[in-house]
Amino acid sequence: MPKLDNYRVPLKGPVHLADYDPAATPFAHGTVKAQEKDLKMLNKQLAQLMRPLQGENKRSVLLVLQGMDTSGKDGTVRGVFKTTGPQGLRMATFKSPSKEELSHDYLWRCHAVAPAKGEIGIWNRSHYEDVLVPLVNRWITPQIAKQRYAQINDFERLLAENGTTVLKCMLHISKDEQRVRLQERIDVPEKRWKFSLDDLTVRKQWEAYQQAYEDLLEATSTTHAPWYVVPADNKLHRNLMVNTLLNHCLLDMQPQYPVDYPELVGLQVE
Amino acid sequence: MPKLDNYRVPLKGPVHLADYDPAATPFAHGTVKAQEKDLKMLNKQLAQLMRPLQGENKRSVLLVLQGMDTSGKDGTVRGVFKTTGPQGLRMATFKSPSKEELSHDYLWRCHAVAPAKGEIGIWNRSHYEDVLVPLVNRWITPQIAKQRYAQINDFERLLAENGTTVLKCMLHISKDEQRVRLQERIDVPEKRWKFSLDDLTVRKQWEAYQQAYEDLLEATSTTHAPWYVVPADNKLHRNLMVNTLLNHCLLDMQPQYPVDYPELVGLQVE
Repeated sequence: MPKLDNYRVPLKGPVHLADYDPAATPFAHGTVKAQEKDLKMLNKQLAQLMRPLQGENKRSVLLVLQGMDTSGKDGTVRGVFKTTGPQGLRMATFKSPSKEELSHDYLWRCHAVAPAKGEIGIWNRSHYEDVLVPLVNRWITPQIAKQRYAQINDFERLLAENGTTVLKCMLHISKDEQRVRLQERIDVPEKRWKFSLDDLTVRKQWEAYQQAYEDLLEATSTTHAPWYVVPADNKLHRNLMVNTLLNHCLLDMQPQYPVDYPELVGLQVE
Repeated sequence: MPKLDNYRVPLKGPVHLADYDPAATPFAHGTVKAQEKDLKMLNKQLAQLMRPLQGENKRSVLLVLQGMDTSGKDGTVRGVFKTTGPQGLRMATFKSPSKEELSHDYLWRCHAVAPAKGEIGIWNRSHYEDVLVPLVNRWITPQIAKQRYAQINDFERLLAENGTTVLKCMLHISKDEQRVRLQERIDVPEKRWKFSLDDLTVRKQWEAYQQAYEDLLEATSTTHAPWYVVPADNKLHRNLMVNTLLNHCLLDMQPQYPVDYPELVGLQVE
C-alpha cells in the first residue's frame, strides 16, 4: 500500500509539480474490475463513517478540490460520494464571483458555506481560485498573493482549531490529457455544456497556472490544512486516492455515536 | 402500475388521511429482492436524468418532504438519492428556527435555499413546519394559519412560474409504526442521537397534528405545487414511490442538453 504521505506536499521547501507523474496510479491495484470493486468498498465505508460523524455532531471535514479545467473535480465528487446520499454533505461549487460576492473580501463567500458540525463539506474550486486567477492574469501583484496565502492559512487554522479537519487535493493532470478531455467536450454533444471558449484561453496560460499552483502549494500546505497532489490522468485512480484519503481521515477521527443517555434507560414509548 | 394521481391530494374538497392506508404498498411489486432491483433502476435513471437538467440549466425541481417524526424523511433522501452523488442537488434540512431566522418572515430562510437552475432541491421539513407546529401548539390562530396557507400558495406559484417544478410529499405513517420506530431509537445505541424526549411530547399531540396535516393538505395542494400522500409504513415502498414520482416528473420535463454551438464546429484543441 503506497503512503498517502508521499503525496502530501511537504511543509517546507519549493514544490515541483514535475516531481509528481500525473499518469501514476499508486492507489489503483489489479484489474479495472478489481479497482472498481475497491472503490465500491471505499464508497460504502465512507457512507458508514459519515453516520457516526453526524450522530456525534461535534466535528466536521472540509474537502477542497482544486485543479485545472477538466482535471476531474465534478467527476471526483460523483465518484467519491457515489453512495453516501446528500445528507450530511455540504457541497459548494464556486464559480466566478458575483457582484455581491466581489463587494466582500474573497473569503466571505467561502466562510458562509463552511461545513457545520457533523458534516463533510465539499468545495468544488475554492478560495484558492481567488489567488490563482487574479495572479496569473496580473490583476494582483505577487505581494498581494503572498498576503492572501497568509490570510488563507489563518482562515484554515480558524476552521481547524474549531473542529474542522481540512483536506486539500490538487487534481494533477498533464497538458496532453487536458487536450484530449477538452476535445471530447467539443465533440460529444452531451458534454458541450461543460465547455466554454474561455477554457482555451486559460489553456494557453497552462505554464503560468502550473507555476502559480507550485507557489500556492508551497505557501499553503500546513499541518492544520495539508495539500495532497493527486495524480489524475487516470479517473479511477483519482477517485480511489481521494476516497482513500477521506476514509483515512475519518478512521483517524473515530467519530463516535454519543452513548450517555441515562434518561432513556428502560423508557417505553406509549 | 398504480397511478400516482390516486395519491395526489385533490385540488378541492376536504382531505381525510384515513382514506390513505399507511401500510399500503401500491408502488412495490414482487419480492423484496425484485423491489430492491426496481429501486436501483430508478436510482440509476434519476442520476441519468439529472445530467441533462444541469446541462440545460434552465429549470429546477423542488422536492418537499414532510411527515411526523420517524416518518422517514432522512431515509427517503438516502434511498432516493443513493447513487446520484451530491452534485446538482441542493439539500436543506430545516430545524427549529434560529433567532436570526425568527427575526424574518418564515419564508425567508426557505427562499434562500431554493434550488437554482439545473438543480433538484430537497427540503427535509420545510416552510410547512411553520404552520403545523405553531398551530398545534396554539401559538397562532387558525386565522393566521389560513393566511399562511395563502402566502405559501403564492410563494410556491412564484417558484413554479419561474421554472421550478414543485413536488410535495407527505410521508404517511401509522401511530403504531411510529411507536415501533421511536422505541427503536431508544433501544438501539446507534440510533439514540436521533431521539429527543420532545418527540414523546409531540407524539402525544398525534391527533392534533393529523388534523393540522389534513387542513394543510386541503389548503395547499394546487396545480402548481401538488401534494402527494406517500404510504410510508413500508420503507422500501416509500422510497420506490417517491423515486417514481421524481422520475416521472423529470421524464415529463424532458430536460435537453443544449445543442446549438455553431462556434464549436470543427474546433481543434491545441
